[in-house]
Formats: sequence, structure tokens, C-alpha cells
Amino acid sequence: MPRLITRALPLAAVFALIGGLASAQDARTIAEAEQLRDRALQSNVAYSLVSELTTRFGPRLAGSESEQASARWGAETFRAMGFDNVSIETFPLALWERGEARVEILSPFPQPLTVVSLGGSIATPAEGIEGEAVIFETYQQLLDQPMGALTGKIAVVLQDTVQAQDGRGYGATSPVRGQGPTEAARRGAVAYVLRSLGTHDHRFAHTGATRVGEGTIPAFAMSPPDADQLRRLIRLTDQPVRMRLFSSAGFTRQSVSQNVIGEVRGREAPDEVIVIGGHLDSWDLGTGALDDGAGVAITAAALKLIEDMPRAPRRTIRVVWWGAEEVSQPPPAQGLAGARHYAETRRDEMSNHVAISESDFGAGPIYSLGLPAATPPAFRQAALRVLTPLAILNDPSPATGGGPDTGPTVALGVPAFRLNQDGTDYFDTHHTVDDVLDRIDPEAMTQNVAAWAAFLWLLADSDVDLRAPAPAS
Amino acid sequence: MPRLITRALPLAAVFALIGGLASAQDARTIAEAEQLRDRALQSNVAYSLVSELTTRFGPRLAGSESEQASARWGAETFRAMGFDNVSIETFPLALWERGEARVEILSPFPQPLTVVSLGGSIATPAEGIEGEAVIFETYQQLLDQPMGALTGKIAVVLQDTVQAQDGRGYGATSPVRGQGPTEAARRGAVAYVLRSLGTHDHRFAHTGATRVGEGTIPAFAMSPPDADQLRRLIRLTDQPVRMRLFSSAGFTRQSVSQNVIGEVRGREAPDEVIVIGGHLDSWDLGTGALDDGAGVAITAAALKLIEDMPRAPRRTIRVVWWGAEEVSQPPPAQGLAGARHYAETRRDEMSNHVAISESDFGAGPIYSLGLPAATPPAFRQAALRVLTPLAILNDPSPATGGGPDTGPTVALGVPAFRLNQDGTDYFDTHHTVDDVLDRIDPEAMTQNVAAWAAFLWLLADSDVDLRAPAPAS
Repeated sequence: MPRLITRALPLAAVFALIGGLASAQDARTIAEAEQLRDRALQSNVAYSLVSELTTRFGPRLAGSESEQASARWGAETFRAMGFDNVSIETFPLALWERGEARVEILSPFPQPLTVVSLGGSIATPAEGIEGEAVIFETYQQLLDQPMGALTGKIAVVLQDTVQAQDGRGYGATSPVRGQGPTEAARRGAVAYVLRSLGTHDHRFAHTGATRVGEGTIPAFAMSPPDADQLRRLIRLTDQPVRMRLFSSAGFTRQSVSQNVIGEVRGREAPDEVIVIGGHLDSWDLGTGALDDGAGVAITAAALKLIEDMPRAPRRTIRVVWWGAEEVSQPPPAQGLAGARHYAETRRDEMSNHVAISESDFGAGPIYSLGLPAATPPAFRQAALRVLTPLAILNDPSPATGGGPDTGPTVALGVPAFRLNQDGTDYFDTHHTVDDVLDRIDPEAMTQNVAAWAAFLWLLADSDVDLRAPAPAS
Repeated sequence: MPRLITRALPLAAVFALIGGLASAQDARTIAEAEQLRDRALQSNVAYSLVSELTTRFGPRLAGSESEQASARWGAETFRAMGFDNVSIETFPLALWERGEARVEILSPFPQPLTVVSLGGSIATPAEGIEGEAVIFETYQQLLDQPMGALTGKIAVVLQDTVQAQDGRGYGATSPVRGQGPTEAARRGAVAYVLRSLGTHDHRFAHTGATRVGEGTIPAFAMSPPDADQLRRLIRLTDQPVRMRLFSSAGFTRQSVSQNVIGEVRGREAPDEVIVIGGHLDSWDLGTGALDDGAGVAITAAALKLIEDMPRAPRRTIRVVWWGAEEVSQPPPAQGLAGARHYAETRRDEMSNHVAISESDFGAGPIYSLGLPAATPPAFRQAALRVLTPLAILNDPSPATGGGPDTGPTVALGVPAFRLNQDGTDYFDTHHTVDDVLDRIDPEAMTQNVAAWAAFLWLLADSDVDLRAPAPAS
């Protein structure tokens, strides 16, 4: 991460500099935000939290006993931190379990591939599926196939995921995972194998949710080197490639997941709420250190620093550790069960929600701040004044979302903000067995906490309105 | 890899420079070695070979059908390259197969670990083994336990492998894998789990052979992050750690393995033989690209360049792709079955073996040349003159071995030489699923071929004697 300039200006100088901003942010609030920022840089609370979370509970598959136990620990931790109104709110969830998955090439060159089942995939028959593979370099080539063209075949898509700091390569490729099995099934395919949505060339296969629906087929992800191997293999031969696939994945029983909630209540406007957090569930392969142990730890650690301030901020800050972010659900419900539960049960409180954001992009350093289009310029200026010493820039694009779990709340009109992390390497590890604590750089995590604590203080200790003004009548 | 200075001096200048070396190496031989070196740098034969080998055959477990098929392909390839006396010599082998392996923590914090069975390990009972883990930071701490101290327990050793350019960290740690299960069993342990002999922190577990013998116990390697997790876990709790382990590994049937042999026959002294090669078998997890597809490809590619020279060298060069380097065998035989078969069936030819070496340390660049103590200084000087432009130094330590498969031949008095590769990262990948073609840097492979071709030419086109002189009477 970049070197941080953490020495604050003398308080008197700060007051002098910000005279023009007083209508949005007073000097005291800014000075306190800077104190929080600098105190956070001396703290390792977030790293300790994610270390304990991942060590105690390992993988936290949505609806599993491990997720439930980690939620109980989360609530205890929130109470021990002094948070207000700590609660666990539960909601029903169909539990998807991975079982076993195997894919092998039968001919012309027999060999096993390293694969995982995609989340939400159905099982193969017990004897597996054998068939000829039809191999597409890009997803569009599959979509270009007419209905029936893949009847009885195994559809294989080798499309690469483009590496990008902001993760847009993943966004562009994610339909290959989300929609691919359905589109292949519509064309007659009996199974689906994709190149993992990963930006590396190591032999980890990446899981992740795929759409669950009528007529779906067993769906697998292979590691990037296995996709490279298939490319070479079809260049060596004109013979058809036959594969055998087996998966015992599927929805096994009704269970529950839960959101864990805690607050620092506002001093003057406790009903005005800023919502932050991350998701507590993880895929079952790794221990969910980056996705999203880091995010739950960063946001809770930031709130703990605010809790430790001599006075509470003007507004309430609520941390939510969402459950069941990763998994899809059988029809008709489709994912984000925890976030949907949160928003649906609070429809009449949405006008009091000042803003929402989530930390769910690993543990890399934050490099830019994205705010809604309606943000008063003076507030943006104050925020950047406080964050620039952390090597954080202004993101000129208006923030229209703040992470997956903010979606249902944003859809009800709540503004979102973004502390954008450098995710260049995030998809090296995302949804793999390698998503473990060893991947986290504690120093980068600390920079995240400093940014969250300082920004939250500015927003919570103000009356700034981030909602778009009503259109002129 | 370092930038290579490949522009040769004009031939006249070479002749002028090397006048003093004529007694060991004539100027023509040196000039031809330099031509070979420079031609090799323009070639990608080795990379093409390892690409085709690993793509066609995937993993090549010793004694498997895949290893046998790859040997047939190897012989065909040798013939297509124009090598002389191409043959496959077979020998019996007990086939060890991996089956399934699972290790999980039952309490205090239930979670699965990422593990593999060690090669040669026996199976657990079908219901697995449950027990309390006794966790040692170092192997010596296990050895310090008195007999009986581990009765009924699962012995776990977390010792790290030290990263080193020449692989000595692996050498130092390898008893933890080779002897550990036996030593734990002698103290009463019912199972054995080690931190993989790996120099990284990614979630790949490393297999590798362990000693097979009486009273052995099921033996597993966990990935480095799982060892880190166990360290954290025991710091969080005073409670005993209980584990459940399952393995279905074991020797399943009698099979055969084989050595694949080809030669470029010598022009004047065809009975004087220089032996080079690598091992064709690999562990079953990856495709054996670094271990040792690279080595078989590098040595065969070097010999092919020599085969393409307008005249043959004075002596014969023989390439051997050894079978069954990786695996241990049930008592009394212990490993290196192909190399032992080679030496034992040629006991009366050993006086004609000029020298032996193996390429079996991945595909990193060569950085030094190790020669036997008896090497005439003028020959060493000529070799370094040719190799220095490839960024290869003199290794002042006398070469006493030339890779694992050279051992049985060296034991019969044949001198060894070494083209030492930079193996700093080799144990990141060694014996894991990630040992695939994607790990290979083609440019570094090409440097290897250039060094082998040039050095072999110097040695084969001379009458230099690398054997130690007889002691003074």
C-alpha cells in the first residue's frame, strides 16, 4: 500500500482552513475524524477480529451450523464492544450443500480436472454424466448456438476473466456463471463447465452462485490451468473430447440464516441511521477471510473506534453482519436473503436511513471515495481533506450502490456511498479454498478501518443530506 | 531470469583466446559448443515437449497406465528425433494409489483441513480415525518424546520449510516426511499429519513419499495455511484439539514401470557414455510439469540439438527418462526403482560411464555448474567460458551427485556433474495439484537447454576424465 501521511495539522490550522465549510461540517467534527483516522492507524482490532472469526468458525456456509455459531459469537462480540441494540434476526433459508464433484477427460487424453460445483447446482445422476464436450472460447459463442444445437452435449466455456482494479472484469464475466447453465440447458446441454471466474493461473477452482431454476443442469467451474489445458488439448487433436462428470450437490434441507446487528446510538438524531457492514457467511471452500471476514471486521472495528470516542456522533451508526449473501435460493427467491430480509422488514424506516455501504471486496487498500450525485460539495471536500492522507482519491462517478447487501435497501431509495478498495488481486482468491487469513495484509486492513472510521464520523456527526433533491416542480 | 549475452565472439578471436586450453578442449569443440548454445536460445523444443507431454498424459503416477502410455510416446518421440538405440526397459512396481483423504477438526472449533495422503501411506480403517492431536512446532520436539508418550494420539508437526535457492531447506525438512510417520508410530501415535514441505502460504497440500515399513500409520500433509490455522487455534483455547482422519490410500496391485532410453552414438568412442535425463513419472495430483516434465524435456531437447549437428560428438550421449522416481515401495525395496534397475543391469558397463547428471529441479534458470573434484582445471575453464554468457557461475563445491536418479549409478563409481537451477520458488509447487504447465517460464527453459547442449558437447567431444585419480600408492 502507499505510504500514509498521518501527521495531522495543528487543530488551529484546521479550523482556519475549513472556515468555508462550516455549513456542512464544523471544525470540531473534522478534527475528531482526523483523530479517529490516526488512532485507527495504530490499531489492529480488525485483523484480530478476522483472525478470530476465521480460526474459530472456518468456513461459514449460509444456513450452516458454523454460520449460526459465528453469528452468536458476533453478537457477543458486539456486546463486549459496547454496541447498543445488539440483536440477531433470523430468516428461513434452503441449505445448499456441495457434496463431491469430479470431472475427468475420458478421451482422447484421459486425465482428471480440478473442479468445484457452482453454488446452487443440482446433482448429476449417481452414475454421473458422460458425453461429448462442446468447447467455446467465449460465452457469446455459446449464446450464438441455436436451440437444440447442444442436445446431449456438455457445454464448456473457456472465457477469461479480465483483471481490473475495480473488479469490472468480474462483473463482465459473471453472466457466464450466473446464466450460463440455464442458457446451455435451453440449447439442450446436459451439463455445464466454465473456466473459473479468476484472474490467476493457479489450480484453484472458484465456486459462486449460479441461477437456480427450472430445467437447470449440473454446473461446474474448473481451475484456470485446466482451462488452459483444454485449449492445448483441442489443438493437439481432431478427435472429440469426451468427459465424465459427477456431482452430489444440491439443496438438502430447510435451515435458517441471520443478520447480526449492533449500533452506536446517535447523540442528537438517534433515529437517523447510517448502515454499514459486511456479510458473515462465506463459501464453504475457504474460511472466507477476504470474502467477507475482512469486511465484517473492518466495519465493526471502525464502529468500535467510534464507540470509544468521548461523545457519540449526532446520528446513529448501525453495523449489520448480513447472512446468506453468497448463496442462491430455489425459485422464486434469488439470493441476498439477509439483505432482503433487512430491507423488507424496515420498509417504513427507510426515510430515516441516511446512507448505506458495505465492505465486501477483500482487504486491499481503499483508493477512492464514491458519493451520491446529490452530495453537497462542501461535504465531499471535507471528506477528501480527511481521507487524502490515506492515499484516497475522489471517485468522480456517482455512487449508485454500495455493495451487494446494500442493493435491497438502495432499491427503496436509500443513498449509498463507496470506499473503493484496490481489488486487482481479489479474484485470484475469491470463492476458492485459498480464501484464508494468510491472504490478508494487516497494514492494508488498518488503512481501511481508518478510512471507514473517519468518513463515518463526518457523516454521522453532521446533518448532511445525500439524497437527490426532488425534481423541480 | 538475467539478461543473456548471446552474441559470440568471431571464431578467429575464439581460437586466439583459447590457445592455452588445447590440451583439454580444442578450439573447434568450443566453437561448436557456442554454436549449440546460441542455436538453443532460438529454440522452443523443450517447451513444446513438456507442453505435449503434460497435455497428452496429465499426471503420470509411477506404474499407472498414464506413465506407461507416456513412455511409449517418449520412445516414439526419441525415434522421430533421430536418436539411436531407442528402447523401453521395464521393471516391476507395486502400484500405490491415493484414493480419498480427509482430515477435519472436531473440537473445539470444527472445520475441515486441506490435506493429501503422503505417498506410500496406508489407509485408515473405513470408519476413519478419531483422536486427540498432539501438536509439535518442530520435528525435534516429536523425536524428544519418550516411547509410548503418543499412545492413541494423532501426531501433528507444524515445522516450516526454509526457502533456499539450492533447495537445502527441503533437504533439511525431508526427514519430517520420510521418517516422521515411523517415528510417531514408534511412540504410539495412530496417525500423522505434517505441514506440507512447501515454501509458500497458499492452500495447496504437498504429497511426496514417506518411508514404508512395519508398524507404519496413516500419514497426511496439510497445506501451509492449515498449519497456520492450527497455530492460531491452539493459541485461542486450552481445550484439547480432536481430529477425525480418513484415507483410503494404499498399494493396490503389482504393475510395471519403465525407463525410456535413446542415444546419440559417439563418433570415435561410442562405448564411452555420458548419461543425462529426468524422470518421466510424476505425482498424481498435478501434471508433473516442473517435476519432472521440465527435466525430461530439457535433456531430450539438448540431445536433439546435438543430434542435429553436422557431426556426432566423440563420445556417446544417452538420455534416460527414468520411471518411478517419486514413489516408495513396500519393504524391502525403497524408491528409485527405475534408477536402481538402470544401474543394476549395467554393473559391468560402469567403467565406460564417463559421467551422469539429471535435470530434476523444475524449470528455473541454471545459475552454476558443479563438477567433480577430479575435473581437469582446463576443462572447467572451457566450460565456464561457454556457459558464462548464460549467467552461469562456477560452483566451487565438488559435485558428488547429480540428481536423485543418478544415485545408484554414482554409487557404482560414476562421476556426476550438476547444472544447478534456481529453485527458490520450486517448493511453492512441488508435489501439488499446481504443478502444471502454467508454472513454466519458457525463456528460463530455453536457457537450460542451451546450457545442457553446450556443456554436453564439450564433455562428449573430448577425452576428459572426471574420475578422481587413484590415491598415490
